[in-house]
Amino acid sequence: MDDTRVIEIKKSVFADNDKDAALLRRELKERGVFLLNLMSSPGSGKTTTLIRTINLLKDKMNIAVMEADIDSDVDAVKIKEGTGIQSIQLHTGGMCHLDAEMTRQGLDNLELGGTDLVILENVGNLVCPAEFDTGSSANAMILSVPEGHDKPLKYPLMFSVCDLVLVNKIDVMPYFDFDMDKCEEYVHLRNPKAQIIPICAKTGEGVGKFAQWLEQKVEEQKL
Amino acid sequence: MDDTRVIEIKKSVFADNDKDAALLRRELKERGVFLLNLMSSPGSGKTTTLIRTINLLKDKMNIAVMEADIDSDVDAVKIKEGTGIQSIQLHTGGMCHLDAEMTRQGLDNLELGGTDLVILENVGNLVCPAEFDTGSSANAMILSVPEGHDKPLKYPLMFSVCDLVLVNKIDVMPYFDFDMDKCEEYVHLRNPKAQIIPICAKTGEGVGKFAQWLEQKVEEQKL
Repeated sequence: MDDTRVIEIKKSVFADNDKDAALLRRELKERGVFLLNLMSSPGSGKTTTLIRTINLLKDKMNIAVMEADIDSDVDAVKIKEGTGIQSIQLHTGGMCHLDAEMTRQGLDNLELGGTDLVILENVGNLVCPAEFDTGSSANAMILSVPEGHDKPLKYPLMFSVCDLVLVNKIDVMPYFDFDMDKCEEYVHLRNPKAQIIPICAKTGEGVGKFAQWLEQKVEEQKL
Repeated sequence: MDDTRVIEIKKSVFADNDKDAALLRRELKERGVFLLNLMSSPGSGKTTTLIRTINLLKDKMNIAVMEADIDSDVDAVKIKEGTGIQSIQLHTGGMCHLDAEMTRQGLDNLELGGTDLVILENVGNLVCPAEFDTGSSANAMILSVPEGHDKPLKYPLMFSVCDLVLVNKIDVMPYFDFDMDKCEEYVHLRNPKAQIIPICAKTGEGVGKFAQWLEQKVEEQKL
């Protein structure tokens, strides 16, 4: 565990985050790096989903992960132990989100040469991360079944900025009052173009579809 | 549903939130009103827990609820339908937390005469609400079993500011890798004084203990 690098992220000095994010997105495209910004509530299963997905993709492409958290390095360690890929921990200094400059600080600590895909696991939070463009090539979020199907009504911005919504923990559907039809209806109310993939990170169900989606996005950006 | 009042909260103009919060706390004590600030991740079961708890307490004291969300009024409607008590919805205008001045704007829209207990259901978020003193008499938070027992490691401030941690959804413990001993260890690492009560809001298990805790706090403040 002692070889996991923890990066202490400094507060951004840039006034115009949207401009900085657009610049970072362009730079990454030129370097052939696809950046996925993955968001969710705390405990929705981001890290477990990533381990499953990376293990399906790591023989096809080079992947690195940045784990953002306020404290601890448990997620970066889990990714490294579970996949063997390059994984660093970003500490946000108490901040509830990452913006483009903070994301850039993380990227500066990765070996990007030959890397096809970088996944940023954002701070667990359905509010603030949605407000700041990280410069990512695409945004995805995980909504887990125990959280309930009404979340798109309460956290509209998060669902409107995401290209993909993964509905995780579908194995426990029988124990929760979760209505998948209503979930889809509410997600599309916020974002008619959002794709929805039901998954179970624990068993692996549906994770192949997410891996396919990701592989296709990485390929498309290289065109 | 059309009689649920929705209050659009304005951004605070006060520079010193801690001072404002201390003032509000003193004012509420003088008026004999106990204010509980209830926080958690999205979907941890705050509203369901409140309905159960209020129904155990409403014949003993006068209770009002303020439901804070970025959008929708589903929670205020649920509380009113589930308990019959005074319930209003606060819209935070996209903001991820409430501070003391925002809380005061909510209280100004309640009939406080004769009210013993006001419960503020904060925005679902484990980061930002912990950073702003609302002027509450006590802070409580809900950690639900599906979120995992490692959350006190990742969201230290939330656990350090709470007098009480409710561990909800214990009925689904068999389906998740949740270690209650580790959970207690991690909570007490952040806050040795925090009380922990395991509950299941769905079945009512343990909710009586939370109601007792709350009743005692309300009584203590009146002494």
